[in-house]
Amino acid sequence: MPQPVSPLAPEHFPDLPPIGGVRLASAECAIRYRDRRDLMVAVLAPGTAIAGVFTRSLMPGAPVDWCRRCLPVGRVRAIVVNSGNANVFTGRAGAASVEATASAAAASLGCDPHEIYVSSTGVIGEPLDPARIVASLPNAIASSAPEAWREAAEAIMTTDTFPKGASESAAIDGVRVTINGIAKGSGMIAPDMATMLAYLFTDAAIPAPVLQALLQPATERSFNSITVDGDTSTSDTVLLAATGDAGNAVPTSAADPRLSGFRRALDRVMISLAQQVVRDGEGAEKFIAITVAGAASSRAARRVALAVGNSPLVKTAIAAGDANWGRIVMAVGKAGEKADRDRLSISVGGVRIAEQGGPVPGYDEAPVAVHMAGRDIAIDIDLGLGRGRATIWTCDLTHRYIDINGSYRS
Amino acid sequence: MPQPVSPLAPEHFPDLPPIGGVRLASAECAIRYRDRRDLMVAVLAPGTAIAGVFTRSLMPGAPVDWCRRCLPVGRVRAIVVNSGNANVFTGRAGAASVEATASAAAASLGCDPHEIYVSSTGVIGEPLDPARIVASLPNAIASSAPEAWREAAEAIMTTDTFPKGASESAAIDGVRVTINGIAKGSGMIAPDMATMLAYLFTDAAIPAPVLQALLQPATERSFNSITVDGDTSTSDTVLLAATGDAGNAVPTSAADPRLSGFRRALDRVMISLAQQVVRDGEGAEKFIAITVAGAASSRAARRVALAVGNSPLVKTAIAAGDANWGRIVMAVGKAGEKADRDRLSISVGGVRIAEQGGPVPGYDEAPVAVHMAGRDIAIDIDLGLGRGRATIWTCDLTHRYIDINGSYRS
Repeated sequence: MPQPVSPLAPEHFPDLPPIGGVRLASAECAIRYRDRRDLMVAVLAPGTAIAGVFTRSLMPGAPVDWCRRCLPVGRVRAIVVNSGNANVFTGRAGAASVEATASAAAASLGCDPHEIYVSSTGVIGEPLDPARIVASLPNAIASSAPEAWREAAEAIMTTDTFPKGASESAAIDGVRVTINGIAKGSGMIAPDMATMLAYLFTDAAIPAPVLQALLQPATERSFNSITVDGDTSTSDTVLLAATGDAGNAVPTSAADPRLSGFRRALDRVMISLAQQVVRDGEGAEKFIAITVAGAASSRAARRVALAVGNSPLVKTAIAAGDANWGRIVMAVGKAGEKADRDRLSISVGGVRIAEQGGPVPGYDEAPVAVHMAGRDIAIDIDLGLGRGRATIWTCDLTHRYIDINGSYRS
Repeated sequence: MPQPVSPLAPEHFPDLPPIGGVRLASAECAIRYRDRRDLMVAVLAPGTAIAGVFTRSLMPGAPVDWCRRCLPVGRVRAIVVNSGNANVFTGRAGAASVEATASAAAASLGCDPHEIYVSSTGVIGEPLDPARIVASLPNAIASSAPEAWREAAEAIMTTDTFPKGASESAAIDGVRVTINGIAKGSGMIAPDMATMLAYLFTDAAIPAPVLQALLQPATERSFNSITVDGDTSTSDTVLLAATGDAGNAVPTSAADPRLSGFRRALDRVMISLAQQVVRDGEGAEKFIAITVAGAASSRAARRVALAVGNSPLVKTAIAAGDANWGRIVMAVGKAGEKADRDRLSISVGGVRIAEQGGPVPGYDEAPVAVHMAGRDIAIDIDLGLGRGRATIWTCDLTHRYIDINGSYRS
């Protein structure tokens, strides 16, 4: 299981400042892994608002069912996450396991169990005995601290090779607020998220309905714009908790102009985390940004970009350093969106290599070869039809993807 | 480029009997490959009817454009196929190359160029100089022979590791007719066909519109029910030529009950060829049949089966001999079709391993492990919702897929 750290990993885990009203803890529960933390608890101050976006899988795990049921309440006192066992397809016992966890945390905190959010990630189809989690919770909650971000990010890892975090700040009507986020994910990553868990925390005062209206489109632009293998997890969860500790004037709508800085900061945090997930894509050697412009709509642009980003033939070519635009043409053609061979143009690393129905005669291959040999690959596709535009991020497909997934039982 | 023959290959190329009105030739044109035949010509008797199904890619190659334009005529005198260069995304020169080829064959045969069907398979985006093909045609046509099936099947190969052929016979109103088919394909294989070329020949007398009405649904059940990598080629072509040499009573509709035996025989030939394509899937070590029953419709069943068959996580697990039903649950969940976790059941090798929202308690893992260690894997999924049913065929995802596609420029 121990994999080398991805060559695309950031140099270090970023500094995440404390956020008023947020305390973190982690613990060793030996659910599957030995000698590492596999339980993360975020303890939130009373009155914290929450928003959530979940997998579109029709086979969601029991924790996702539970969180969906809690969301209408809109308040959160703790988020409890274990790694090693996804508690998915575990029948009635799976739901009971989530309820036992939520009840134990609620008892420690003196709150309603529906204020406890639970996520699980790891193996599917094995019963998750909640006993060790339940036993660990009181001590974890008691020992929670405002600075323990890195440990929290590490505790939720499965096949991840590095912990993922991001932080930004913004002003709401002159009041400085902070957004921190941690995430995990490296395989089973596709739009409609993936075994992708992300937890975002802010001290901004934002009511739950407004928070939800901010989270949804930000998820589209970040976690739903990445793909590793086109597979979609049963457990995807993005939660955004707002403690209100910053004391800003409370916005009543997501369209409130005072939220524009916050919205941009939230985008930056979420896109950074999403890109870190791709950079930790199983076996990834290259980070690929695919931008499609000139599409009939931004939705069409996104679909074409994903068809290219999910094509195993494109991904294996990039792994081999081959600017194989023929395969890009193939993938555009199969996307099912309006496209015209004779208007299509393709650039790799900023060099136009195909246009008007054929390769650009005598284009300079040297800078393209240098670009393809690097870690960060940029593919720009112009369909030449309209103004729709989208960018998605993905990674190459290498032997290590097969090594990892031929041995890890997820 | 020389790859070992797939371990899933049939033991030998089948015996394909001569078909009245069909003569075959092949030649070395050195288009890309050296020291092997790369041109195939099938010469058909005057009056031969033809039907065709083509890629749904929006970036079709010039030969596909040409064949589509010819199809309304409904008559064929020759099919000319080269390997090594796909003549795709080659602009105006690509169309001129096809026209030159068709005109040369038509001149040799004394027919209209629109009675010449052309296919090309191989590298995308490189100009295809028709000169060598044009020069080879007169001699190839003159030397064509009724028995040269294997050589024809070999001439159209690209990354294929074995030639693909199948033959069946049937009676139409008491008259014995034969159907022969050859095909190529091993990568870029996905519904809506793939770089998948298949040529079917029969001595039955069947008018072009009836032939077309027979070919379309048979393609759904065969070539559109296989997937290797989810990628769709720009060049997919299935042609069915009927010479009428058998002298059967001419049917006027595909629903004619006298055609039922022919329909079944056509299915058998096409399914055999489609399965051979999967058995030659790039890097394939295991042949996988996925049957989904109990779906809301047969279309829904097919979509779920394809979601499972295209999942890299499922395919890498099978490569590792792991009956990882958790990943099957994941893939069912992402298919986007109606599904109910608690009604779903999954069997592997005939052993029920998951049902009612969880693993089957204490199921016997030993026969499942033996099954997974074999070459032919059967996955049966029952959604427990309706009567829709579909079977698709695929292969596992191995290191060799990446080796092949990281080096071959297609």
